[in-house]
Amino acid sequence: MTATERPTALDVEGFIRLLDEHMPQVRAGGFSVLEMQWGRCTMQVEADERTIRAGGTISGPTMFTLADLALYGAVLSQIGNVPLAVTSDMTIHFLKKPPQRPLVGEARILKPGRRLAYGEVLIHSLGDPDPVAHATGTYAIPSSS
Amino acid sequence: MTATERPTALDVEGFIRLLDEHMPQVRAGGFSVLEMQWGRCTMQVEADERTIRAGGTISGPTMFTLADLALYGAVLSQIGNVPLAVTSDMTIHFLKKPPQRPLVGEARILKPGRRLAYGEVLIHSLGDPDPVAHATGTYAIPSSS
Amino acid sequence: MTATERPTALDVEGFIRLLDEHMPQVRAGGFSVLEMQWGRCTMQVEADERTIRAGGTISGPTMFTLADLALYGAVLSQIGNVPLAVTSDMTIHFLKKPPQRPLVGEARILKPGRRLAYGEVLIHSLGDPDPVAHATGTYAIPSSS
Amino acid sequence: MTATERPTALDVEGFIRLLDEHMPQVRAGGFSVLEMQWGRCTMQVEADERTIRAGGTISGPTMFTLADLALYGAVLSQIGNVPLAVTSDMTIHFLKKPPQRPLVGEARILKPGRRLAYGEVLIHSLGDPDPVAHATGTYAIPSSS
Repeated sequence: MTATERPTALDVEGFIRLLDEHMPQVRAGGFSVLEMQWGRCTMQVEADERTIRAGGTISGPTMFTLADLALYGAVLSQIGNVPLAVTSDMTIHFLKKPPQRPLVGEARILKPGRRLAYGEVLIHSLGDPDPVAHATGTYAIPSSS
Repeated sequence: MTATERPTALDVEGFIRLLDEHMPQVRAGGFSVLEMQWGRCTMQVEADERTIRAGGTISGPTMFTLADLALYGAVLSQIGNVPLAVTSDMTIHFLKKPPQRPLVGEARILKPGRRLAYGEVLIHSLGDPDPVAHATGTYAIPSSS
Repeated sequence: MTATERPTALDVEGFIRLLDEHMPQVRAGGFSVLEMQWGRCTMQVEADERTIRAGGTISGPTMFTLADLALYGAVLSQIGNVPLAVTSDMTIHFLKKPPQRPLVGEARILKPGRRLAYGEVLIHSLGDPDPVAHATGTYAIPSSS
Repeated sequence: MTATERPTALDVEGFIRLLDEHMPQVRAGGFSVLEMQWGRCTMQVEADERTIRAGGTISGPTMFTLADLALYGAVLSQIGNVPLAVTSDMTIHFLKKPPQRPLVGEARILKPGRRLAYGEVLIHSLGDPDPVAHATGTYAIPSSS
């Protein structure tokens, strides 16, 4: 329903530049951008000492951060370089304990908008398509953009 | 409704020990435990280079982490030292852009349970009671506990 | 934080008139308005053949409707007679199976706003303060209001 | 990810019988079951005086009910005739004002489970694939089933 032939308004390199300029802790924290398409963004996070919690699993906040960043990328793929787009709400369900492997978050926009954009993010372990978490959320887009 | 005379099942020192043992990145990341009561936990996070994002505000994932940790503390205040309690779902609404000041998260349990506990977290800037974010969520408690 | 001395912008009689004019199925469905204050609204729903589901309990959609209406009232208590305010998102957790007794929903606004208002609703059985459900949600307010 | 060759554990006729026996108000309220597959259920609701609200649109509670019922069907498609499965949490985002046309809700399970099942529901107007609402939620399955 959001799959289109439209080109992305921000490509992988552009999104990386934006992150490095405004949120340098993102890539320093083990997050990377894998792919951008119009209405879609895929990101990855490493499994290491920065992201592990009790029980030898990847922490919930790490999965939230992955979802939030991938959804941010998906929003920017439609509106371009707008660093001040901000999360308005996010709901995340943790579906199973992920092993200590990198996690991949695939975001897609379900409802583009000039002021509010809504989408979902599926998170799975690298090499295993079974979802470990699922998030939905809204981004608010500043009116000047 | 959750206000009771019952003593907390885990005090501030006990919660700090649990965090330092199982999640050393929590206190290293600027989070601290302010208060534990039965069904309630208050935590704080510093505003510094670890938690700032584009626009000079504190990042959404930092607020999520604060909510998740404070709710974890509130759950443990009723069931004691159970490090493997895990978040099952969390919904967060970001209500206004916080200034670059420490944030305080106040969690309380609305529904205790043997297997699932549900509660809410209000987040505000230190010294300003106006909420900047509000979260609700469920923790799953392992059956062996 | 929302407790104030300000008078409600819409009183019980005004809210009932608005409901009867625009949503006659509300009161016909067993819902009634108990109280309006600035930022707060309390509503009740009867337990009868309109609202019961499998297992002799009150249906989830009935509780959602109660939450949605009470939050609508709480929004209107701050902005007055604006029938076209609409729900933007709602999250509800069902905490325990309610008995076949009337349910009371108490809504309060946590974040007033010109375009978006956010609040929460606690639902309990009449005569028992223990919560059976808890909801949070956002209303979008039309810009012409 | 949930698409499989497994047959549904409850077919359309079986789900209709269960609804008529335990929740007669469902079909009397204009809801119908269109399709059941393993992990999927599609339902429809009519647009008439039972479901309209202020502004000439279909009410939010009607969309919530459609989401809740379709997700219930999707859960039962995997576990069979278990009327006492109950909603544990549900989050719904309303994406645009639907016209006065029947609505279709398509539910699919993202995470089957013995005790908790999680899924999502996309709602669109009949004949228009653009989503008008999106819901996610969890069903709790009684341990005796």
